[in-house]
Amino acid sequence: MSSPSGAGKTTLSRKLLATDNNITMSVSATTRAKRPGEEDGKDYHFVSKPQFELMVARGELLEWATVFGNMYGTPKAPVEKALAAGRDVLFDIDWQGTQQLSQAMENDLVRVFILPPDAETLQDRLIHRQQDSAMVIAKRMAKAPDEISHWAEYDYVIVNAEVETAFAEVKAVLVAERLKRRRQVGLTQFVRELTAKL
Amino acid sequence: MSSPSGAGKTTLSRKLLATDNNITMSVSATTRAKRPGEEDGKDYHFVSKPQFELMVARGELLEWATVFGNMYGTPKAPVEKALAAGRDVLFDIDWQGTQQLSQAMENDLVRVFILPPDAETLQDRLIHRQQDSAMVIAKRMAKAPDEISHWAEYDYVIVNAEVETAFAEVKAVLVAERLKRRRQVGLTQFVRELTAKL
Repeated sequence: MSSPSGAGKTTLSRKLLATDNNITMSVSATTRAKRPGEEDGKDYHFVSKPQFELMVARGELLEWATVFGNMYGTPKAPVEKALAAGRDVLFDIDWQGTQQLSQAMENDLVRVFILPPDAETLQDRLIHRQQDSAMVIAKRMAKAPDEISHWAEYDYVIVNAEVETAFAEVKAVLVAERLKRRRQVGLTQFVRELTAKL
Repeated sequence: MSSPSGAGKTTLSRKLLATDNNITMSVSATTRAKRPGEEDGKDYHFVSKPQFELMVARGELLEWATVFGNMYGTPKAPVEKALAAGRDVLFDIDWQGTQQLSQAMENDLVRVFILPPDAETLQDRLIHRQQDSAMVIAKRMAKAPDEISHWAEYDYVIVNAEVETAFAEVKAVLVAERLKRRRQVGLTQFVRELTAKL
Protein backbone atom coordinates (compact mmCIF):
# COMPACT_ATOMS: atom_id res chain seq x y z
CA MET A 1 0.00 0.00 0.00
CA SER A 2 1.42 3.36 -1.04
CA SER A 3 0.24 6.94 -0.91
CA PRO A 4 1.51 10.45 -0.40
CA SER A 5 1.92 11.35 3.30
CA GLY A 6 -1.41 12.50 4.67
CA ALA A 7 -3.66 10.38 2.45
CA GLY A 8 -4.58 8.18 5.42
CA LYS A 9 -2.54 5.09 4.65
CA THR A 10 -1.32 4.59 8.23
CA THR A 11 -4.88 4.75 9.64
CA LEU A 12 -6.12 2.26 7.03
CA SER A 13 -3.19 -0.09 7.73
CA ARG A 14 -3.84 -0.04 11.47
CA LYS A 15 -7.54 -0.79 11.01
CA LEU A 16 -6.72 -3.67 8.69
CA LEU A 17 -4.25 -5.20 11.14
CA ALA A 18 -6.72 -4.75 14.01
CA THR A 19 -9.60 -6.51 12.21
CA ASP A 20 -7.88 -9.25 10.22
CA ASN A 21 -6.12 -12.12 11.94
CA ASN A 22 -4.30 -13.41 8.90
CA ILE A 23 -2.27 -10.38 7.95
CA THR A 24 1.08 -9.26 9.36
CA MET A 25 2.66 -5.84 9.02
CA SER A 26 6.10 -5.74 7.48
CA VAL A 27 8.20 -3.60 9.81
CA SER A 28 10.69 -1.56 7.80
CA ALA A 29 14.22 -0.82 8.89
CA THR A 30 15.21 2.84 8.80
CA THR A 31 18.11 5.12 9.65
CA ARG A 32 15.82 8.07 10.39
CA ALA A 33 15.25 9.38 13.94
CA LYS A 34 12.40 8.04 16.01
CA ARG A 35 9.35 10.33 16.18
CA PRO A 36 7.45 10.88 19.44
CA GLY A 37 5.26 7.85 20.20
CA GLU A 38 7.09 5.52 17.85
CA GLU A 39 8.31 2.16 19.11
CA ASP A 40 11.42 0.31 17.95
CA GLY A 41 10.51 -3.06 16.38
CA LYS A 42 6.84 -2.06 16.03
CA ASP A 43 6.75 1.09 13.92
CA TYR A 44 10.24 0.65 12.51
CA HIS A 45 13.47 -1.14 13.24
CA PHE A 46 15.61 1.89 14.02
CA VAL A 47 19.17 1.15 12.93
CA SER A 48 22.37 3.10 12.34
CA LYS A 49 23.60 3.86 8.86
CA PRO A 50 26.45 1.30 9.07
CA GLN A 51 23.97 -1.36 10.29
CA PHE A 52 21.65 -0.55 7.37
CA GLU A 53 24.48 -0.72 4.88
CA LEU A 54 25.48 -4.11 6.27
CA MET A 55 21.91 -5.41 5.73
CA VAL A 56 22.06 -4.17 2.13
CA ALA A 57 25.47 -5.78 1.57
CA ARG A 58 24.25 -9.11 2.96
CA GLY A 59 21.14 -9.11 0.72
CA GLU A 60 18.87 -9.09 3.78
CA LEU A 61 16.46 -6.51 2.34
CA LEU A 62 13.68 -7.13 -0.19
CA GLU A 63 13.80 -3.48 -1.23
CA TRP A 64 15.37 -0.29 0.03
CA ALA A 65 15.55 3.38 -0.87
CA THR A 66 16.84 6.72 0.37
CA VAL A 67 14.23 9.40 1.11
CA PHE A 68 15.13 12.85 2.50
CA GLY A 69 18.61 11.50 3.25
CA ASN A 70 17.30 8.61 5.38
CA MET A 71 17.39 4.97 4.34
CA TYR A 72 14.31 2.75 4.47
CA GLY A 73 14.12 -0.97 3.67
CA THR A 74 12.08 -4.17 4.05
CA PRO A 75 13.81 -7.06 5.90
CA LYS A 76 13.40 -10.26 3.87
CA ALA A 77 13.37 -12.94 6.62
CA PRO A 78 10.10 -12.00 8.44
CA VAL A 79 8.26 -11.72 5.11
CA GLU A 80 9.39 -15.16 3.95
CA LYS A 81 8.49 -16.65 7.33
CA ALA A 82 4.96 -15.16 7.30
CA LEU A 83 4.26 -16.22 3.69
CA ALA A 84 5.52 -19.75 4.40
CA ALA A 85 3.01 -19.92 7.28
CA GLY A 86 0.20 -18.98 4.87
CA ARG A 87 -0.13 -15.45 6.20
CA ASP A 88 -0.48 -12.25 4.17
CA VAL A 89 1.98 -9.40 4.60
CA LEU A 90 1.13 -5.72 4.45
CA PHE A 91 3.81 -3.35 3.16
CA ASP A 92 3.62 0.36 3.90
CA ILE A 93 6.11 1.49 1.28
CA ASP A 94 6.58 4.17 -1.36
CA TRP A 95 6.65 3.87 -5.16
CA GLN A 96 10.35 3.02 -5.17
CA GLY A 97 9.83 0.11 -2.78
CA THR A 98 6.79 -1.03 -4.76
CA GLN A 99 8.77 -1.12 -7.99
CA GLN A 100 11.45 -3.25 -6.36
CA LEU A 101 8.93 -5.55 -4.66
CA SER A 102 7.06 -5.99 -7.95
CA GLN A 103 10.19 -7.52 -9.39
CA ALA A 104 10.94 -9.62 -6.31
CA MET A 105 7.40 -10.96 -5.82
CA GLU A 106 5.76 -10.65 -9.27
CA ASN A 107 2.18 -11.99 -9.22
CA ASP A 108 2.20 -12.42 -5.47
CA LEU A 109 2.17 -8.68 -4.85
CA VAL A 110 -1.10 -6.72 -4.78
CA ARG A 111 -0.44 -3.03 -5.23
CA VAL A 112 -2.92 -0.54 -3.73
CA PHE A 113 -2.55 3.22 -4.03
CA ILE A 114 -4.40 5.55 -1.65
CA LEU A 115 -5.25 9.05 -2.90
CA PRO A 116 -6.59 12.00 -0.92
CA PRO A 117 -9.90 13.44 -2.17
CA ASP A 118 -8.25 16.84 -2.72
CA ALA A 119 -5.13 18.90 -1.97
CA GLU A 120 -6.68 20.74 1.03
CA THR A 121 -7.48 17.46 2.80
CA LEU A 122 -3.93 16.24 2.32
CA GLN A 123 -2.51 19.39 3.90
CA ASP A 124 -5.07 19.37 6.73
CA ARG A 125 -4.22 15.78 7.63
CA LEU A 126 -0.49 16.48 7.68
CA ILE A 127 -0.98 19.50 9.93
CA HIS A 128 -3.43 17.81 12.31
CA ARG A 129 -1.38 14.75 13.03
CA GLN A 130 1.03 17.14 14.80
CA GLN A 131 3.97 14.81 14.46
CA ASP A 132 6.07 16.98 12.28
CA SER A 133 7.60 20.42 12.25
CA ALA A 134 6.34 23.00 9.76
CA MET A 135 9.45 22.39 7.68
CA VAL A 136 8.86 18.62 7.51
CA ILE A 137 5.18 19.20 6.61
CA ALA A 138 6.26 21.50 3.81
CA LYS A 139 8.74 18.88 2.61
CA ARG A 140 6.11 16.12 2.68
CA MET A 141 3.66 18.30 0.76
CA ALA A 142 6.37 19.09 -1.77
CA LYS A 143 7.04 15.38 -2.21
CA ALA A 144 3.36 14.47 -2.74
CA PRO A 145 3.21 15.17 -6.51
CA ASP A 146 6.22 12.89 -7.06
CA GLU A 147 4.58 10.01 -5.11
CA ILE A 148 1.18 10.59 -6.75
CA SER A 149 2.77 10.60 -10.21
CA HIS A 150 3.28 6.82 -9.81
CA TRP A 151 -0.42 5.99 -9.21
CA ALA A 152 -0.71 4.21 -12.58
CA GLU A 153 1.83 1.57 -11.48
CA TYR A 154 -0.69 0.15 -8.98
CA ASP A 155 -3.37 -2.54 -9.38
CA TYR A 156 -6.00 -0.77 -7.29
CA VAL A 157 -6.64 2.89 -6.57
CA ILE A 158 -8.72 4.00 -3.59
CA VAL A 159 -9.71 7.62 -3.02
CA ASN A 160 -9.86 8.14 0.74
CA ALA A 161 -12.56 10.78 1.18
CA GLU A 162 -14.19 9.07 4.16
CA VAL A 163 -12.13 6.62 6.22
CA GLU A 164 -14.85 4.00 6.84
CA THR A 165 -15.68 3.77 3.13
CA ALA A 166 -12.02 3.61 2.15
CA PHE A 167 -11.42 0.94 4.77
CA ALA A 168 -14.32 -1.18 3.46
CA GLU A 169 -12.73 -0.86 0.02
CA VAL A 170 -9.28 -1.92 1.22
CA LYS A 171 -10.92 -4.86 2.98
CA ALA A 172 -12.85 -5.83 -0.19
CA VAL A 173 -9.59 -5.89 -2.16
CA LEU A 174 -8.04 -8.19 0.45
CA VAL A 175 -11.07 -10.54 0.53
CA ALA A 176 -11.30 -10.65 -3.27
CA GLU A 177 -7.60 -11.26 -3.78
CA ARG A 178 -7.78 -14.20 -1.37
CA LEU A 179 -10.63 -15.64 -3.46
CA LYS A 180 -8.55 -15.65 -6.62
CA ARG A 181 -8.31 -19.19 -7.87
CA ARG A 182 -4.54 -19.15 -8.19
CA ARG A 183 -4.14 -18.04 -4.56
CA GLN A 184 -6.36 -20.74 -3.05
CA VAL A 185 -4.06 -23.53 -1.96
CA GLY A 186 -5.92 -26.84 -1.68
CA LEU A 187 -8.68 -26.14 -4.23
CA THR A 188 -7.49 -28.87 -6.60
CA GLN A 189 -7.73 -31.42 -3.79
CA PHE A 190 -11.12 -30.03 -2.67
CA VAL A 191 -12.56 -30.31 -6.20
CA ARG A 192 -11.16 -33.82 -6.58
CA GLU A 193 -12.89 -35.00 -3.41
CA LEU A 194 -16.13 -33.20 -4.30
CA THR A 195 -16.26 -34.70 -7.79
CA ALA A 196 -15.46 -38.21 -6.53
CA LYS A 197 -18.73 -38.21 -4.60
CA LEU A 198 -20.92 -37.05 -7.49
CA MET B 1 -20.80 -16.40 -12.78
CA SER B 2 -20.89 -20.14 -13.36
CA SER B 3 -21.55 -23.19 -11.22
CA PRO B 4 -23.11 -26.61 -11.36
CA SER B 5 -26.91 -26.51 -10.83
CA GLY B 6 -27.65 -26.44 -7.12
CA ALA B 7 -24.53 -24.58 -5.99
CA GLY B 8 -26.62 -21.50 -5.22
CA LYS B 9 -25.69 -19.29 -8.14
CA THR B 10 -29.25 -18.09 -8.80
CA THR B 11 -29.77 -17.06 -5.15
CA LEU B 12 -26.45 -15.18 -5.15
CA SER B 13 -27.29 -13.44 -8.44
CA ARG B 14 -30.67 -12.29 -7.16
CA LYS B 15 -29.18 -10.91 -3.95
CA LEU B 16 -26.54 -9.04 -5.93
CA LEU B 17 -29.10 -7.48 -8.27
CA ALA B 18 -31.30 -6.54 -5.31
CA THR B 19 -28.53 -4.76 -3.37
CA ASP B 20 -26.44 -3.13 -6.12
CA ASN B 21 -27.84 -0.36 -8.28
CA ASN B 22 -25.14 -0.41 -10.89
CA ILE B 23 -25.42 -3.97 -12.12
CA THR B 24 -27.80 -5.38 -14.73
CA MET B 25 -28.64 -9.01 -15.33
CA SER B 26 -28.03 -10.31 -18.82
CA VAL B 27 -31.24 -12.13 -19.79
CA SER B 28 -30.40 -15.15 -21.93
CA ALA B 29 -32.44 -16.34 -24.87
CA THR B 30 -33.43 -20.01 -24.78
CA THR B 31 -35.44 -22.54 -26.72
CA ARG B 32 -36.26 -24.57 -23.61
CA ALA B 33 -39.76 -24.68 -22.08
CA LYS B 34 -40.70 -22.18 -19.40
CA ARG B 35 -40.62 -23.59 -15.84
CA PRO B 36 -43.38 -22.78 -13.32
CA GLY B 37 -42.86 -19.25 -11.97
CA GLU B 38 -40.55 -18.13 -14.75
CA GLU B 39 -41.30 -14.93 -16.61
CA ASP B 40 -40.58 -14.23 -20.28
CA GLY B 41 -38.11 -11.33 -20.66
CA LYS B 42 -37.11 -11.52 -16.98
CA ASP B 43 -35.79 -15.04 -16.38
CA TYR B 44 -35.21 -15.79 -20.06
CA HIS B 45 -36.30 -14.64 -23.47
CA PHE B 46 -38.24 -17.74 -24.50
CA VAL B 47 -37.92 -18.16 -28.24
CA SER B 48 -38.57 -20.86 -30.84
CA LYS B 49 -35.76 -22.83 -32.40
CA PRO B 50 -36.08 -21.02 -35.78
CA GLN B 51 -36.03 -17.65 -33.96
CA PHE B 52 -32.89 -18.68 -32.06
CA GLU B 53 -31.20 -19.85 -35.23
CA LEU B 54 -32.00 -16.53 -36.86
CA MET B 55 -30.32 -14.67 -33.95
CA VAL B 56 -27.23 -16.87 -34.39
CA ALA B 57 -27.17 -16.28 -38.15
CA ARG B 58 -27.46 -12.51 -37.67
CA GLY B 59 -24.59 -12.45 -35.16
CA GLU B 60 -26.90 -11.08 -32.48
CA LEU B 61 -25.54 -13.36 -29.72
CA LEU B 62 -22.33 -12.84 -27.74
CA GLU B 63 -22.19 -16.57 -26.98
CA TRP B 64 -24.49 -19.56 -27.35
CA ALA B 65 -24.51 -23.29 -26.67
CA THR B 66 -26.75 -26.34 -26.72
CA VAL B 67 -27.42 -28.05 -23.36
CA PHE B 68 -29.70 -31.10 -23.01
CA GLY B 69 -30.96 -30.42 -26.54
CA ASN B 70 -31.99 -26.83 -25.73
CA MET B 71 -30.23 -23.75 -27.04
CA TYR B 72 -29.08 -20.92 -24.72
CA GLY B 73 -27.47 -17.64 -25.74
CA THR B 74 -26.61 -14.08 -24.64
CA PRO B 75 -28.12 -11.25 -26.76
CA LYS B 76 -25.41 -8.73 -27.62
CA ALA B 77 -27.38 -5.45 -27.85
CA PRO B 78 -28.52 -5.09 -24.19
CA VAL B 79 -24.99 -5.88 -22.94
CA GLU B 80 -23.40 -3.23 -25.17
CA LYS B 81 -26.05 -0.70 -24.15
CA ALA B 82 -25.48 -1.31 -20.42
CA LEU B 83 -21.68 -1.18 -20.68
CA ALA B 84 -21.86 2.04 -22.73
CA ALA B 85 -23.93 3.56 -19.89
CA GLY B 86 -21.17 2.63 -17.41
CA ARG B 87 -23.15 -0.22 -15.85
CA ASP B 88 -21.86 -3.69 -15.02
CA VAL B 89 -23.51 -6.78 -16.48
CA LEU B 90 -23.99 -10.07 -14.64
CA PHE B 91 -23.94 -13.24 -16.76
CA ASP B 92 -25.43 -16.46 -15.39
CA ILE B 93 -23.80 -18.81 -17.90
CA ASP B 94 -22.03 -22.16 -18.06
CA TRP B 95 -18.41 -22.95 -18.89
CA GLN B 96 -19.10 -22.99 -22.63
CA GLY B 97 -20.59 -19.51 -22.52
CA THR B 98 -17.73 -18.30 -20.32
CA GLN B 99 -15.13 -19.55 -22.78
CA GLN B 100 -16.85 -17.73 -25.63
CA LEU B 101 -17.32 -14.53 -23.60
CA SER B 102 -13.67 -14.62 -22.52
CA GLN B 103 -12.71 -14.30 -26.16
CA ALA B 104 -15.33 -11.64 -26.91
CA MET B 105 -14.65 -9.47 -23.85
CA GLU B 106 -11.08 -10.35 -22.81
CA ASN B 107 -9.93 -8.27 -19.81
CA ASP B 108 -13.37 -6.83 -19.30
CA LEU B 109 -14.81 -10.15 -18.12
CA VAL B 110 -14.50 -11.21 -14.47
CA ARG B 111 -15.07 -14.95 -14.13
CA VAL B 112 -16.44 -16.28 -10.83
CA PHE B 113 -17.07 -19.97 -10.19
CA ILE B 114 -19.39 -21.06 -7.37
CA LEU B 115 -18.78 -24.49 -5.81
CA PRO B 116 -21.00 -26.38 -3.37
CA PRO B 117 -19.33 -27.32 -0.04
CA ASP B 118 -19.97 -31.02 -0.75
CA ALA B 119 -21.90 -33.43 -2.98
CA GLU B 120 -24.75 -33.96 -0.50
CA THR B 121 -25.51 -30.24 -0.32
CA LEU B 122 -25.62 -30.02 -4.11
CA GLN B 123 -28.18 -32.84 -4.31
CA ASP B 124 -30.23 -31.45 -1.38
CA ARG B 125 -30.48 -28.03 -3.01
CA LEU B 126 -31.60 -29.51 -6.34
CA ILE B 127 -34.30 -31.58 -4.63
CA HIS B 128 -35.55 -28.77 -2.38
CA ARG B 129 -36.06 -26.17 -5.05
CA GLN B 130 -38.85 -28.46 -6.34
CA GLN B 131 -38.72 -27.04 -9.82
CA ASP B 132 -37.66 -30.15 -11.59
CA SER B 133 -38.78 -33.72 -12.09
CA ALA B 134 -36.71 -36.56 -10.60
CA MET B 135 -35.35 -37.26 -14.06
CA VAL B 136 -34.19 -33.68 -14.59
CA ILE B 137 -32.59 -33.62 -11.12
CA ALA B 138 -30.71 -36.81 -11.98
CA LYS B 139 -29.61 -35.26 -15.29
CA ARG B 140 -28.41 -32.07 -13.55
CA MET B 141 -26.50 -34.09 -10.97
CA ALA B 142 -24.94 -36.14 -13.76
CA LYS B 143 -23.86 -32.94 -15.51
CA ALA B 144 -22.25 -31.42 -12.39
CA PRO B 145 -18.81 -33.11 -12.72
CA ASP B 146 -18.52 -31.80 -16.29
CA GLU B 147 -19.30 -28.22 -15.22
CA ILE B 148 -17.07 -28.44 -12.13
CA SER B 149 -14.19 -29.76 -14.24
CA HIS B 150 -13.86 -26.24 -15.71
CA TRP B 151 -13.35 -24.46 -12.36
CA ALA B 152 -9.70 -23.69 -13.16
CA GLU B 153 -10.75 -21.47 -16.11
CA TYR B 154 -12.18 -18.89 -13.68
CA ASP B 155 -10.54 -15.89 -11.98
CA TYR B 156 -12.25 -16.36 -8.62
CA VAL B 157 -13.60 -19.45 -6.86
CA ILE B 158 -16.17 -19.18 -4.07
CA VAL B 159 -17.27 -22.18 -2.01
CA ASN B 160 -20.90 -21.57 -1.06
CA ALA B 161 -21.25 -23.31 2.31
CA GLU B 162 -23.30 -20.52 3.86
CA VAL B 163 -25.18 -18.14 1.60
CA GLU B 164 -24.53 -14.90 3.55
CA THR B 165 -20.78 -15.53 3.63
CA ALA B 166 -20.70 -16.49 -0.05
CA PHE B 167 -22.73 -13.39 -0.90
CA ALA B 168 -20.31 -11.13 1.01
CA GLU B 169 -17.51 -12.72 -1.00
CA VAL B 170 -19.26 -12.19 -4.34
CA LYS B 171 -19.85 -8.58 -3.32
CA ALA B 172 -16.18 -8.12 -2.32
CA VAL B 173 -15.11 -9.35 -5.75
CA LEU B 174 -17.42 -6.82 -7.40
CA VAL B 175 -16.24 -3.94 -5.18
CA ALA B 176 -12.57 -4.83 -5.67
CA GLU B 177 -12.85 -5.23 -9.44
CA ARG B 178 -14.43 -1.77 -9.65
CA LEU B 179 -11.44 -0.38 -7.73
CA LYS B 180 -8.95 -1.73 -10.26
CA ARG B 181 -7.04 1.19 -11.70
CA ARG B 182 -7.67 0.21 -15.31
CA ARG B 183 -11.45 0.10 -14.70
CA GLN B 184 -11.71 3.54 -13.11
CA VAL B 185 -12.67 5.93 -15.86
CA GLY B 186 -11.72 9.52 -14.98
CA LEU B 187 -8.80 8.78 -12.63
CA THR B 188 -6.27 10.40 -14.95
CA GLN B 189 -8.28 13.61 -14.92
CA PHE B 190 -8.82 13.39 -11.14
CA VAL B 191 -5.08 13.00 -10.48
CA ARG B 192 -4.26 15.85 -12.85
CA GLU B 193 -6.57 18.23 -10.98
CA LEU B 194 -5.34 17.02 -7.58
CA THR B 195 -1.69 17.48 -8.50
CA ALA B 196 -2.28 20.91 -10.02
CA LYS B 197 -3.33 22.21 -6.59
CA LEU B 198 -0.32 20.80 -4.72
